[in-house]
Amino acid sequence: MSAKTKGYSPDKSEKQEEKQDSATAWFRSLRDKICTEFESIEDELSAGPKADLEPGRFERKNWDRPDGGGGEMSIMHGRVFEKVGVNISTVHGTFSEEFRDKIPGANDNDGAFWASGVSLVAHMQNPLVPAVHMNTRMICTSKTWFGGGMDLTPMIEDKEDTKAFHAALEACCNRHPPHGPTPYEEAQATAQAQTHHTTQNNYVKYKEWCDRYFFLPHRNEARGVGGIFYDYLENDWDADFAFTKDVGETFLQIYPQLVRKSMHKDWSDEQREIQLVKRGRYAEFNLLYDRGTQFGLKTGGNTEAILMSLPPEAKWP
Amino acid sequence: MSAKTKGYSPDKSEKQEEKQDSATAWFRSLRDKICTEFESIEDELSAGPKADLEPGRFERKNWDRPDGGGGEMSIMHGRVFEKVGVNISTVHGTFSEEFRDKIPGANDNDGAFWASGVSLVAHMQNPLVPAVHMNTRMICTSKTWFGGGMDLTPMIEDKEDTKAFHAALEACCNRHPPHGPTPYEEAQATAQAQTHHTTQNNYVKYKEWCDRYFFLPHRNEARGVGGIFYDYLENDWDADFAFTKDVGETFLQIYPQLVRKSMHKDWSDEQREIQLVKRGRYAEFNLLYDRGTQFGLKTGGNTEAILMSLPPEAKWP
Repeated sequence: MSAKTKGYSPDKSEKQEEKQDSATAWFRSLRDKICTEFESIEDELSAGPKADLEPGRFERKNWDRPDGGGGEMSIMHGRVFEKVGVNISTVHGTFSEEFRDKIPGANDNDGAFWASGVSLVAHMQNPLVPAVHMNTRMICTSKTWFGGGMDLTPMIEDKEDTKAFHAALEACCNRHPPHGPTPYEEAQATAQAQTHHTTQNNYVKYKEWCDRYFFLPHRNEARGVGGIFYDYLENDWDADFAFTKDVGETFLQIYPQLVRKSMHKDWSDEQREIQLVKRGRYAEFNLLYDRGTQFGLKTGGNTEAILMSLPPEAKWP
Repeated sequence: MSAKTKGYSPDKSEKQEEKQDSATAWFRSLRDKICTEFESIEDELSAGPKADLEPGRFERKNWDRPDGGGGEMSIMHGRVFEKVGVNISTVHGTFSEEFRDKIPGANDNDGAFWASGVSLVAHMQNPLVPAVHMNTRMICTSKTWFGGGMDLTPMIEDKEDTKAFHAALEACCNRHPPHGPTPYEEAQATAQAQTHHTTQNNYVKYKEWCDRYFFLPHRNEARGVGGIFYDYLENDWDADFAFTKDVGETFLQIYPQLVRKSMHKDWSDEQREIQLVKRGRYAEFNLLYDRGTQFGLKTGGNTEAILMSLPPEAKWP
């Protein structure tokens, strides 16, 4: 993170700088925990087609954003994780006029923003181990909110994995009081003159949001088996931050469990082919539809960090 | 082609139906000539890492467009051509209100359109043989025009190939009188209050257009070594059609020559890796920027035909 970011607060409310520092520190510490855990998994592999390879280790690379802030990429090419990228970034600047209308609070602040987050995509060697995506972030304009989530993309679905993944996310959501409607939901409810159910279960809401988002309309196909996705969370900063931290800890609890369950299994050439085709779909989603990718590339983000999510190898037969 | 297309002419001018039929017949005959030539090349392979494989043959698949018309995909997985798709289609319908402003003549015709064309992308086994894209089309709204072009994407550039490819295209352009400015160019010239040079060399103009179009801004990198790209060509139908046919014939003359020149050469694993990474860039361009892909997927085109351009295998290491 560049020193320039320190002390920059587009939102001038009380303790804003402290909040930004806490969130940034959390994203960094979550990154560290994940990298440590994934390297342990690399060490543990003792059977299967890739067991003879050396355990992978993360490599770090810093980047600066010319407009303000920067980030740190961690990438590992291992024997369990064929390619995994874990990025943290803390950036600030001014949204172009074009973007201000699309981003809550940006118009009231001449487009000034600050954002910090962690994002991760893992593509696995073993086609029986699902790929995964996780991202959490805090964003400030004249408003301050959290967003993020995670979703699982099995190459060959194991219903037990899907069930365990969703159960962990449901338990996480249930550890927190129901969130109120987002500004987006409020606007929709007003437009449709409906009464909004503010007591809707967080898990149900965020699971649906995830299913809606990670979908390839041109294939009429989901990217994977879903998870949770939330955004514009600005009920109560402390509670929202606690939820966001819990999402990260839930990832650390459930995903390594799924990896360890199947990483020692043998696989066939046919299963590898299925994996490579499924990864083609993953690349299609990220390049055609992903908001973060489109947004990042159009606002001069770091191309290498943004496209770290692309699969190490993919096929369109 | 669906029988429904027959006789459909959004432009009611004289001989319009005859023109549409001539163009459609040409695109089909060009497709046939290309497929025959490519299958001959498959038969000719006599050395190199893939010579033991069976020569490839095209497979045909028809599709209907629910709104009107349809197409025919030809795909070959061969020993020279790792994956090559040659699509023809003849479709008609009504552009959505959203699209009408973007397409010449569509607003004067309640969005009615007819379009026919041939498009081709070849991804080669041998990293020393360049990949290629070629497309020509005739489009009618209340206006009628031609568009198309071709561009070469070497995996490892051979300057002689680049030179020969551009020389063939320059010769093709020079066989035709200089084209006047397109409506787009006229609008630009008016906006900039400049006098437009209608005598600009076709090749220079279309080569620049191609370089501008096939560019990945997020990589600050060209997709390949260029070629020609033209659109909105509506000077004189007979002359424009003759040019469009010549573009197709030029493709048939030059590309097979480049393939035969290098297809017997041996290659290394390292060269294959370079090829797979370059193909990743090709997929990025097609999914992030290609107008045809974006347009096709958003207007309910045939996904399989549109995405036939994606590489059989690609890497993002």
